[in-house]
Amino acid sequence: MTALPEPPTPERVRIRFDPDGARPREVRAPAGATLFDAASWNGIAVDSTCGGHGTCRKCRMRVVEGDVPVSRLDPRAFGPEELRAGWRLACRARAEQDLRVEVPALVTRPKAATVGVGRQVILRPALQKRCLTLPEPTLADQRTDLERLRDALPDLELRVDLPAIRSLSRALRSADHTPDHTPDHTVTAVVVDDVLVDVEPGDTSGRLFGIAFDLGTTTVVATLLDLATGTPVAVASRLNPQQSHGADVITRISATMTDPAALDRLTALAHEGLDQLAGEVCADGGVDRGEVYEIALAGNATMTHLALGVDPEPLGVAPFVMASRSFDDLAAADLGVRVHPRARAYVFPALGAYVGGDIVAGALASGMDRDRRVRLFIDIGTNCEIILAAGDRLLATAAPAGPAFEGAAIRCGMRAAPGAVEGVKISDDDVVLQVIGDVEPVGLAGSGLVDAVAAMVAAGLVDASGRLIAADAPGVPPGLAARLRQVGQERVFVLHFRGDDPAGDPAEALYLSQRDIRELQFAKAAISTGWQLLLEEQGLTAADVAQVLLAGSFGSYLGPAAAVRIGLVPDVALLRIVSAGNVAGEGAKMALLSMRERAAAQALLEEVHYVELSDRADFNDRFVERLAFPV
Amino acid sequence: MTALPEPPTPERVRIRFDPDGARPREVRAPAGATLFDAASWNGIAVDSTCGGHGTCRKCRMRVVEGDVPVSRLDPRAFGPEELRAGWRLACRARAEQDLRVEVPALVTRPKAATVGVGRQVILRPALQKRCLTLPEPTLADQRTDLERLRDALPDLELRVDLPAIRSLSRALRSADHTPDHTPDHTVTAVVVDDVLVDVEPGDTSGRLFGIAFDLGTTTVVATLLDLATGTPVAVASRLNPQQSHGADVITRISATMTDPAALDRLTALAHEGLDQLAGEVCADGGVDRGEVYEIALAGNATMTHLALGVDPEPLGVAPFVMASRSFDDLAAADLGVRVHPRARAYVFPALGAYVGGDIVAGALASGMDRDRRVRLFIDIGTNCEIILAAGDRLLATAAPAGPAFEGAAIRCGMRAAPGAVEGVKISDDDVVLQVIGDVEPVGLAGSGLVDAVAAMVAAGLVDASGRLIAADAPGVPPGLAARLRQVGQERVFVLHFRGDDPAGDPAEALYLSQRDIRELQFAKAAISTGWQLLLEEQGLTAADVAQVLLAGSFGSYLGPAAAVRIGLVPDVALLRIVSAGNVAGEGAKMALLSMRERAAAQALLEEVHYVELSDRADFNDRFVERLAFPV
Repeated sequence: MTALPEPPTPERVRIRFDPDGARPREVRAPAGATLFDAASWNGIAVDSTCGGHGTCRKCRMRVVEGDVPVSRLDPRAFGPEELRAGWRLACRARAEQDLRVEVPALVTRPKAATVGVGRQVILRPALQKRCLTLPEPTLADQRTDLERLRDALPDLELRVDLPAIRSLSRALRSADHTPDHTPDHTVTAVVVDDVLVDVEPGDTSGRLFGIAFDLGTTTVVATLLDLATGTPVAVASRLNPQQSHGADVITRISATMTDPAALDRLTALAHEGLDQLAGEVCADGGVDRGEVYEIALAGNATMTHLALGVDPEPLGVAPFVMASRSFDDLAAADLGVRVHPRARAYVFPALGAYVGGDIVAGALASGMDRDRRVRLFIDIGTNCEIILAAGDRLLATAAPAGPAFEGAAIRCGMRAAPGAVEGVKISDDDVVLQVIGDVEPVGLAGSGLVDAVAAMVAAGLVDASGRLIAADAPGVPPGLAARLRQVGQERVFVLHFRGDDPAGDPAEALYLSQRDIRELQFAKAAISTGWQLLLEEQGLTAADVAQVLLAGSFGSYLGPAAAVRIGLVPDVALLRIVSAGNVAGEGAKMALLSMRERAAAQALLEEVHYVELSDRADFNDRFVERLAFPV
Repeated sequence: MTALPEPPTPERVRIRFDPDGARPREVRAPAGATLFDAASWNGIAVDSTCGGHGTCRKCRMRVVEGDVPVSRLDPRAFGPEELRAGWRLACRARAEQDLRVEVPALVTRPKAATVGVGRQVILRPALQKRCLTLPEPTLADQRTDLERLRDALPDLELRVDLPAIRSLSRALRSADHTPDHTPDHTVTAVVVDDVLVDVEPGDTSGRLFGIAFDLGTTTVVATLLDLATGTPVAVASRLNPQQSHGADVITRISATMTDPAALDRLTALAHEGLDQLAGEVCADGGVDRGEVYEIALAGNATMTHLALGVDPEPLGVAPFVMASRSFDDLAAADLGVRVHPRARAYVFPALGAYVGGDIVAGALASGMDRDRRVRLFIDIGTNCEIILAAGDRLLATAAPAGPAFEGAAIRCGMRAAPGAVEGVKISDDDVVLQVIGDVEPVGLAGSGLVDAVAAMVAAGLVDASGRLIAADAPGVPPGLAARLRQVGQERVFVLHFRGDDPAGDPAEALYLSQRDIRELQFAKAAISTGWQLLLEEQGLTAADVAQVLLAGSFGSYLGPAAAVRIGLVPDVALLRIVSAGNVAGEGAKMALLSMRERAAAQALLEEVHYVELSDRADFNDRFVERLAFPV
């Protein structure tokens, strides 16, 4: 479901997978990627229970063209004959050249879906339907309706509430049953986790759906999943309707502090947004709302509190306390989503007021708990959440990045939309812009901002302290000097003159101001102080980092080279910096697809040690140290 | 709370109890009663965990005046010195003469209340309030509101739903807390069983109430209990507002079968009745509705299904199947009772479609599970429920008694109200009536019907086959012969001539017709077949029965002598026939007072073996055998 992250280097290999019993697939993957990852990224089901750690020895594949060296673990899984025949553990097999690979049929053929960052999720949803044939009562068998049902589901310890008993009673006596002709009753029990949600007359076991929501501060995304097959049916997104009450979480929290009616209003807006998307994906997918029995939601702590009608005020002021990390036993109705009237809801638990359920979902989708390598997960936004995984240990923190990436704080900033500059290259004497859509550039997206500053630092237009040099500074080529201008009292660097006319008013041009650069400087200092402190806490340095995952709608678009250039992320090989995509949404899907993944999310919550930055005496010193750009 | 059952014989003894640290109490008790019972009946707390079975050895008392023989179990509890000093186990000590007894202070002094049939209930309600001081969060202590609460209640494993989290969040930030002056928060957690119902600002721990409902087919009774002390605060009753849809359960079930809207209407009527009584007892007791956090309800299966909006149709037709025995995790709102908005509700589980929660409550209040003697519990009504306890074994059945006791089926029948005859004596030549209120008799209550027929059988006016003799039969005294008349084609016996004028029209008089006698005959045959079959099932005879408890609004008023006379109950010594009073209501109170009693009710459900009479091939034969009156 996640697109293959595009590695920044052109070195790629071609792999042809021949899955047993399915059509062959040819894919391109970065050189060095494992066959396991390459297959998973491309939706080819690989049998695995260890998540690619080389321990379960299930991801067996046979390399029939090209060569893959025998790994240290292969001899434990295969005999010499097999190794000679090309058998390898896919999670250890790195594709360094073009290959043709045979993929055996899964032994158990569990239904599975590929979600997250190359994560293979075995389909084991909380939602299940069981078609049952219940015997007609007699004087010799006076078991109650409920006893009859429970006896037919001996493996489940169901919680049954009053509406479920009413539905059971109705289903057993529904019109399609005529006691004289069919002595037994066919009904379908709808179960979510241990809750009996409904009992439907007849056999409806083929129709069961869930909706995964990524409730972002800016954008809300809904994915309708067919939980019989694990496949997505429809996706829809929209802006968060709470936008009218402020672009970021702090403004929305403030709204509830000044106006007692604002909480109810914000809750209603969240419900409206979620419910509208639910309607859209159901219509798109040809699914009745009543066939959706569970929803899952990932959102930050503020979005979650607001959506559930819980006062968010304490999240907005020190010491930043949540009402609860987790909200259990919720109904979809608690989130205003009108699907099946007794549909359940799973909401991702939060690690802290500023490391919310969206981050837990993202960490789950990124398998942060399943990899013993040193990995950094960085979700960049107004608030930047960072998770460091190292061996068995998980550390998390939140860094106050400020509004640099949101556009609003940048003079010519804008959201990533047509006309937004998302990439900037500075050649010897010129500036080349990469613009979204085939239009004249009108503003600077977050990724363009980082790219622009990185390029200017590289070109010597911005010094280590973050100052724009003067137009008449020695050695500035004339083409660039002409762009170093003044708007009011402030130095600016013009990226694009309106109508490409360098004689035009710089105030009308698309430019980057000294203050814009400072904003970005503060943001990157806060973020890099965050991961730096986590690394130190673990006795590690940037050099130890095996992988950096960039998450969030902004992080996913960020160019790794530019991010390294300005010191936003550790200085590691660019191949190790991966755009993770919408990991919160992926996590929400995984929660619908598998109970195991929910258990893993819960375990994450208990394993992660949260480091509060605002509590650290040395934060400000470290922050100042890290303001400088590496030159 | 229940009055001491008045034994019909005058032999009573006087016992003076001197409880340690409390004022002395002088009580009268039937000769032969145990000191344990006599104390419990009179509200004197006795330490006991075995419920009077002589096994826990806690009910130690010292007889200081009068003599009580040493029982078989006493030497296990006391040394020779103590026995000589008068120490006895109260549950084994029978008062055969006047006594003075010292009662030691309870070691643990648990609060207790006397309810049921002399049952001492240790106060351990599901509802509890805990006043807590929660520390103000700091950057070093960022526990969530909920974690803060859970940590303050380490002994509870609370279930916390969304509204509870909202109330916790509000309580912690309620106006009475000023962070600068009082760094800690005082709140009161309201817990029912394992559910966090509310969190209230400040200390409200002294105010906690519950309402026990006895939801009868005819009458609804509500008792408001102060659960801090275990004492009743107010009682109110009213007719069941469903009466308009039929006097008995079958009529009401039929209403739902013919009119699809009737179920909703009957449910609404039940809610209306319960809620009105809740309002009354709260007003009477000076208690705010919001201070009532739990309700308990005992009702038969039909009343329970209807009150909960569950289709009762299968209860009304063979094979008589319930939707569920028990309804768990209910809110008071599910029963339409507007008390605290998140108040919980406990509804007594049922044994069978015709041995409902009212009977389980009654059996609990009667201690049917706590006595190894052979005992019969008989709840007499249109449907008669019978429980036989014998040693460890409990058997239950329901006998279709028909409408004889309800008044409607009897020509001159009426409910027990002013003008109703409740007792009948026939002397040599005259009839003496006992009438409710100081008015002219206008009708025959159920107890009067039994009394009248018993007296007529004794006087030879009704023969063993149930036939009224002819007025000119040999040996009939003239005063009685004048009452043996004809109304239409039917023989009648006039109990009272209008205006005491024997010349008046017998059709205008208060009389008992041949058909009335047949109705009673059918009823008593059904009931006695019921207990007879249960006794046989256990290999017992009527002579083995140590106690007969008569329950239900009718059973409680029944004269034991008359009941024995017509064969309605086994022919045992009259002292052994006890009117149990409103045991269903007592059971409902016990459920509010103690979790243990709920566990006992649940255990009863599992222990009792239900015997279905309509399934027995020999029922009709036995029924016919038992139609005759013993003469």
